[in-house]
Amino acid sequence: MPTTPQRPDPRTRPNPGRRSERSRAAILRATRELVSEVGYPRLSIEAIAARAGVGKQTIYRWWRSKGAVVFDAFLALSEGADGVVLPDTGDIEADLKEVLRATVAEFADPVFEAPIRALNMEVAGDPELAAQYRERLAAPVDEAKKERLRSAQRAGQIRADADLDLALELLYAPLYQRWLLRSAPLTPEYADALVEHVLRALRP
Amino acid sequence: MPTTPQRPDPRTRPNPGRRSERSRAAILRATRELVSEVGYPRLSIEAIAARAGVGKQTIYRWWRSKGAVVFDAFLALSEGADGVVLPDTGDIEADLKEVLRATVAEFADPVFEAPIRALNMEVAGDPELAAQYRERLAAPVDEAKKERLRSAQRAGQIRADADLDLALELLYAPLYQRWLLRSAPLTPEYADALVEHVLRALRP
Repeated sequence: MPTTPQRPDPRTRPNPGRRSERSRAAILRATRELVSEVGYPRLSIEAIAARAGVGKQTIYRWWRSKGAVVFDAFLALSEGADGVVLPDTGDIEADLKEVLRATVAEFADPVFEAPIRALNMEVAGDPELAAQYRERLAAPVDEAKKERLRSAQRAGQIRADADLDLALELLYAPLYQRWLLRSAPLTPEYADALVEHVLRALRP
Repeated sequence: MPTTPQRPDPRTRPNPGRRSERSRAAILRATRELVSEVGYPRLSIEAIAARAGVGKQTIYRWWRSKGAVVFDAFLALSEGADGVVLPDTGDIEADLKEVLRATVAEFADPVFEAPIRALNMEVAGDPELAAQYRERLAAPVDEAKKERLRSAQRAGQIRADADLDLALELLYAPLYQRWLLRSAPLTPEYADALVEHVLRALRP
């Protein structure tokens, strides 16, 4: 499943690679704008093509489905996020509260939350996309979070034998579920309570 | 938003109410079967109508969208689940492990998991459906779960001042997220580890 454009040979045509890159960037930008404006269910390849100023066939040549375009549109947002590092002041409780409060704030921002909601709906219905999501988006961020928890283990603030994958799920899944199902308000106070409860489960 | 059929006056027509009920049951059964067979994205009102032996207009008269039919199809599955009561042997850890292991087993059963996955995708994209989901499906079940936690509070196994809504999220959201995003295997051992961690956070 190719999700990036196949570049024509640069020796045979003048700058086709650069034109491809411009089209690709325009398509991804149009996708993000439209998913925020009309929501994922009403997003169409036609509308993306019109907004990006390309033909529909250009999109179908590079992506197999609407979900694949949305996936790359979202991935492009987090490009440059390589080497994510969580704050480490030496106080795991304060640092996790800061990080979870920031996550709560992101979920309150429609520009961020609309495409990630669309992506999550797509991932839930498509096992292949779910595998890509884990590998390309979730795993690098989870690794950064676990690195912070390991530092807390070395400092004696978290049990040495704690299951860090489970720890991450306890920290983030309640917040994720509240957001996705809109089951209750997401507030900074909620972020704090979550951190306090989870640390109680993880302390030596 | 009416999601149940409006019954014609039984005094003016012979048995139309009974015919309506039969059609409604056939539509909901066809919806459950089809969502398991073809998945939610490819489920169509046309296919439901054909399988149920009714006209498309019959479905559109009673439900506003595919999501609304799926919602009622799922709700019909849990009818008779009124007055859900969790096991109470006096041992909160053993009882929660039993309940979470049962949830893991349900999520491994395609007949159960396909419609609830479809429902969750629909709920994630539709705030109005999310409100109905909370009120008609989630709230009664959550109340039964909280009743079991209250019993554990009375027995001194959970702190008297514990936030029971947060406690339920800590117990169920990690399992929900693993299932929805297929991020890691759901096993009985995972259910046990989850219960042990969450109780550590809740104990007096």
